[in-house]
Amino acid sequence: MTEDFPMRPNEMTADVMPATDASLTYIGHIETPWTRPEDCPRQGDSVAGPDCALVVAPPWLPALTGIDAYPFLDILYWMHLSRRDLILQNPDHGDAARGTFSLRSPIRPNPIGLSNVRLIGWAGNRVTVRGLECVSGTPLLDIKPDRRHFTPPSRDRAGGQTSPEAGG
Amino acid sequence: MTEDFPMRPNEMTADVMPATDASLTYIGHIETPWTRPEDCPRQGDSVAGPDCALVVAPPWLPALTGIDAYPFLDILYWMHLSRRDLILQNPDHGDAARGTFSLRSPIRPNPIGLSNVRLIGWAGNRVTVRGLECVSGTPLLDIKPDRRHFTPPSRDRAGGQTSPEAGG
Repeated sequence: MTEDFPMRPNEMTADVMPATDASLTYIGHIETPWTRPEDCPRQGDSVAGPDCALVVAPPWLPALTGIDAYPFLDILYWMHLSRRDLILQNPDHGDAARGTFSLRSPIRPNPIGLSNVRLIGWAGNRVTVRGLECVSGTPLLDIKPDRRHFTPPSRDRAGGQTSPEAGG
Repeated sequence: MTEDFPMRPNEMTADVMPATDASLTYIGHIETPWTRPEDCPRQGDSVAGPDCALVVAPPWLPALTGIDAYPFLDILYWMHLSRRDLILQNPDHGDAARGTFSLRSPIRPNPIGLSNVRLIGWAGNRVTVRGLECVSGTPLLDIKPDRRHFTPPSRDRAGGQTSPEAGG
């Protein structure tokens, strides 16, 4: 998939080393109605979009405790089909190209997808949400309460990157 | 930092393998006024917070092209000081604990921070923003236009996880 990606006029790749700075663990996977990239919607719809499932792997199930307090969640996932070396992209086939960081394209140095979703339900290892746009089978990286709903419980423990209740 | 983190009552760790599912590349680093985790604010403030800098590494500089079209950006960063195995946390020292996925704590299986920031300026490899809350020196992972401002240019290229203009 990565190697036979067609380049367009004015696009540019970066000559970079393999990614080795930090490593991710998949906490589960995502189930959506879309099995091919070309069938995915351009942007998720948290109101009228279809129900999708976050399927969480067993070691992390207790980490879902309390998730149902939040109407909206931020979901991070790994867009595993994307090439990573494109720094200028020409999505509209125009006369110029756009920088990768000015696009929400899945083609980026770290292909981490971010969707804000509405929580529909939670049972066992399945969290049902609306607002996703990725293919079924996409690896799941993180679930966070939407910051709009979230008030940090405290800030008095040292040891994290910031206080444990703060953070991104 | 990870090993000597103090545990609190009712907290729980997961017995998991080292993270090896996918690898990240640091695209630069973040400069903020805060050098110690305990000095960081609980939540970033995109209006009254201090100016911070996203310092982008040379291979990725062309990828900033067009970034100044967006008043707000989503920033992803790697909270490199965080332990990753805590699945129940007790931030308020209460009688119970909360699931990691119901907190925005930096302690999580994949310690990826997410901040929505206001773009103040861009010159060369430095993007000045407001709304961050991490320590200075935090590795930078990604810069995306805020979805509120972003309209995908097109959707007709196959090859990405979703169409190149969609995605998370």
